[in-house]
Amino acid sequence: MFNGHQRSIIQRLLSSSSSSTTTNYVLNEPNEPKIITNEIPGPKSRKLIDDLNKIQNAGAIQLFVDYEKSIGNYLVDVDGNTYLDIYSQISSIPLGYNHPALIEAVKDPKNISSFINRPALGILPPKTFNDQLHSALLSIAPKGLNEIQTMACGSCSVENALKGKNSQPYHYHFFPNLIGSIFFFCRSKIIYPVVCFYYRTWQRGQPPTEEDMRTCMTNEQPGSPKLSIMSFMGGFHGRTFGALSCTHSKAIHKVDIPAFDWPIANFPRYKYPLNDYLDYNQREDDRCLTMVEDLIEKYSHNGKPVAGMIIEPIQSEGGDYHGSKYFFQQLRKICTKYNVAMVIDEVQTGGGPTGKYWAHEHFEMEQPPDIVTFSKKMLIGGFYYRPMFRPDKPYRIFNTWLGDPSKLLLLDQVVKVVRKENLLKRIEETGDYLLKHLEQIQNQYPSILMNARGLGTFCAIDFSTPELRDQAIRKLHQNGVHCGGSGTATLRFRTTLTFENRHVDQFVERFDRTLRSLSKQ
Amino acid sequence: MFNGHQRSIIQRLLSSSSSSTTTNYVLNEPNEPKIITNEIPGPKSRKLIDDLNKIQNAGAIQLFVDYEKSIGNYLVDVDGNTYLDIYSQISSIPLGYNHPALIEAVKDPKNISSFINRPALGILPPKTFNDQLHSALLSIAPKGLNEIQTMACGSCSVENALKGKNSQPYHYHFFPNLIGSIFFFCRSKIIYPVVCFYYRTWQRGQPPTEEDMRTCMTNEQPGSPKLSIMSFMGGFHGRTFGALSCTHSKAIHKVDIPAFDWPIANFPRYKYPLNDYLDYNQREDDRCLTMVEDLIEKYSHNGKPVAGMIIEPIQSEGGDYHGSKYFFQQLRKICTKYNVAMVIDEVQTGGGPTGKYWAHEHFEMEQPPDIVTFSKKMLIGGFYYRPMFRPDKPYRIFNTWLGDPSKLLLLDQVVKVVRKENLLKRIEETGDYLLKHLEQIQNQYPSILMNARGLGTFCAIDFSTPELRDQAIRKLHQNGVHCGGSGTATLRFRTTLTFENRHVDQFVERFDRTLRSLSKQ
Repeated sequence: MFNGHQRSIIQRLLSSSSSSTTTNYVLNEPNEPKIITNEIPGPKSRKLIDDLNKIQNAGAIQLFVDYEKSIGNYLVDVDGNTYLDIYSQISSIPLGYNHPALIEAVKDPKNISSFINRPALGILPPKTFNDQLHSALLSIAPKGLNEIQTMACGSCSVENALKGKNSQPYHYHFFPNLIGSIFFFCRSKIIYPVVCFYYRTWQRGQPPTEEDMRTCMTNEQPGSPKLSIMSFMGGFHGRTFGALSCTHSKAIHKVDIPAFDWPIANFPRYKYPLNDYLDYNQREDDRCLTMVEDLIEKYSHNGKPVAGMIIEPIQSEGGDYHGSKYFFQQLRKICTKYNVAMVIDEVQTGGGPTGKYWAHEHFEMEQPPDIVTFSKKMLIGGFYYRPMFRPDKPYRIFNTWLGDPSKLLLLDQVVKVVRKENLLKRIEETGDYLLKHLEQIQNQYPSILMNARGLGTFCAIDFSTPELRDQAIRKLHQNGVHCGGSGTATLRFRTTLTFENRHVDQFVERFDRTLRSLSKQ
Repeated sequence: MFNGHQRSIIQRLLSSSSSSTTTNYVLNEPNEPKIITNEIPGPKSRKLIDDLNKIQNAGAIQLFVDYEKSIGNYLVDVDGNTYLDIYSQISSIPLGYNHPALIEAVKDPKNISSFINRPALGILPPKTFNDQLHSALLSIAPKGLNEIQTMACGSCSVENALKGKNSQPYHYHFFPNLIGSIFFFCRSKIIYPVVCFYYRTWQRGQPPTEEDMRTCMTNEQPGSPKLSIMSFMGGFHGRTFGALSCTHSKAIHKVDIPAFDWPIANFPRYKYPLNDYLDYNQREDDRCLTMVEDLIEKYSHNGKPVAGMIIEPIQSEGGDYHGSKYFFQQLRKICTKYNVAMVIDEVQTGGGPTGKYWAHEHFEMEQPPDIVTFSKKMLIGGFYYRPMFRPDKPYRIFNTWLGDPSKLLLLDQVVKVVRKENLLKRIEETGDYLLKHLEQIQNQYPSILMNARGLGTFCAIDFSTPELRDQAIRKLHQNGVHCGGSGTATLRFRTTLTFENRHVDQFVERFDRTLRSLSKQ
């Protein structure tokens, strides 16, 4: 599973871990949230929002934040209000604010160069690049995905993963000439899972022709083929044109923007508690799986064959919709059957909040996904892929920066802290504690709350109406909890990896107070 | 042109500038390049390339670099070779390696927070955000583009600019309901330049219907309309799906990847020296301009009306093709006539290398472009836009990070150094010196070199064949110059802003040596 270099790095990390378990970092967090202004946002935030609104649409700004004063799981705004943060910058702060391990990393003189000399990683990587890829990324890679491509953000990770899987099925050699480039392709002897290139090669019965190379330059068929990527209703994968064609969570993201005609299947919608609705939920899984197969067949017959699918392990923006082990296991089998590349988008779920680094590992599929995308809590974007998906030629997956070594350096610190302090185990325990309390509280307020669910601290609970959810979020802010919603009526939990039971207690007390005031209305 | 807040920041900057002109930073650069290995890449780079190739396709890697030892305009590799760098990480290093102003910024304790607490800028910006937007970005904004959106990289800047201009023509209010969102639109009283939304609103004779909102969720018409973005043959705008549909520089970037059917016009191809071919070049301009108008007409009649166009001031990847003042002035008029939004992509040209912060300012168009995208030398991605292009609602242009305040902080230092040391003026002078030498040297080697051209140090020269260009680049590496090509047979100059005449002299001496050995073959 690991090569010699990977093993030596992991052994070094494990030995450093065992020798220094007593030097855990201590976050000097406040004892509890404290709100000192009458309104949220306070007057200083309001003033700054008005100023910002003169130079861009500032309508989404919630607060201006004093990040120097924020610490651990507590966010401090410019008005001096201290919030318990269960949203962590849309799930993108791994260890909490101003973690000592990260402060040390910036202060270390040998790291300064990484912060100020951002290289073109695809041509001129820094001398530490390989070690950091192994230490920060491959040491926590999803099982079976032993290769890695870094990117700058989540959208670019998704866009390039969707292209990336197109680049496998044959090898070619090229001979540039004066008027352009004519490419001669020869098919590989290895049979890869079907991806766009493979499909086109099979369809043509030969490598790309001169006509393919010419027509792609003007976006025309056959060079720019009508292949498709399957996605799921309620899914979110980013808001660039390719990713947006796979995103179906809110109409406001999409209306009046051109999109690809790609197939969209249903993602299961279960009834809770899961154990009371076993038959119903299994039928729901089967209904969605049948739709997936029907769409693959339909699109293969209408000239837009499905080269790959992209799916979240938990639909995180769309409303915290979970798919069962059975659903994902069967989906993997369908992808294998039809040679559709399976891309699991772990931009929001990845990096530990479900109690594993990768949420899809909870599903115990018989084969790994083909590509796994990440960003957010990982601090750097990118994707892991099965070795058979390695781009066959340089420059096929390429841009100027391809990520940022300074983020890789910070991620390396995060991964070390997580390992040393066994934070994934703790998140699993904190998650159990949180979910138990959410179930209790929904029993107390059955007319307002339902469907408490989650993995690790990646939890959610639904409100009976969107209006009640929105009111609850506003009141929680006023009660000192920074939080956010997903879907239309859901409160989502997106904590750091240093979230503990005492933070759960603080939340529960304030949530109860919030619900009491809502239920009195 | 500036509001009060902008003026006060600029005045503060100007006063700090005048009071400290004697404290210019000194780059302790080596005296000259020095190559100590027999081959490039040297043995240590080769070993690291082999190692990296085990976990990703490392075929494009040129060198592994010791960024701690690199300084100013000199790149030092892991084998200890020192190169004069005229490529600067594909034009993305503004002041040279390890510039003292940037080192100071990282060392400053009050900045640590920016490097380790990356916020979701669209909802929770840091307290310094407004000041930094004014100081680092708006103080150097293209004339008439007084609003600003930050992004993480060049591709995301382009993708969101293309969407962004879709979001202007009407105002709307929305009322979410349980099954989704129904939006009620009312047309603005202001007539904006045509963009996707405006066109659709006009076409419908009413705001988006419930059908629009429903169909966009499944990528179908009318909600996902068949609007188009015009681009130019030879242009490069990135490699995500939307940007790639506008990119037409190399087939290898595009073949077998689905693309939008959007119109592609010709970008002028001049004969040099320009003064010897005035008539020919003007006819070339007119030919391309006629094609632009014809395509706009054609696509408006075939149901895919042109909502915007994207164009580089100099086609920088495609082969350093320049367009004349006349061409761009006329193009601006055509965009105004047909209400097509004009997006100028300054990702590679922006940030100073042409002697102005924005290359399009050389064209003196009667109206500014509508949107200008940037990244690379600006350290952060984003786009400026005319106030009429402000998104009408929050969350229309949105993602988790929307850039990175730590990059904004570094850019702020860069802008201060450029102002204090008058670097744009110096780049203009160095560029004149460089171009004069390129013209001299092409006269010495008329069978190999031609078409020396450029603005500032953003210069280029063509070789008689791609093979000779590729050989020259390899030999220049061996002679201690790190450089790269563009198009099929062009050598491009992408220097830092601290490039001086003595660097030109060092290059010219080594270029001459390279050409002598080539011409002896």
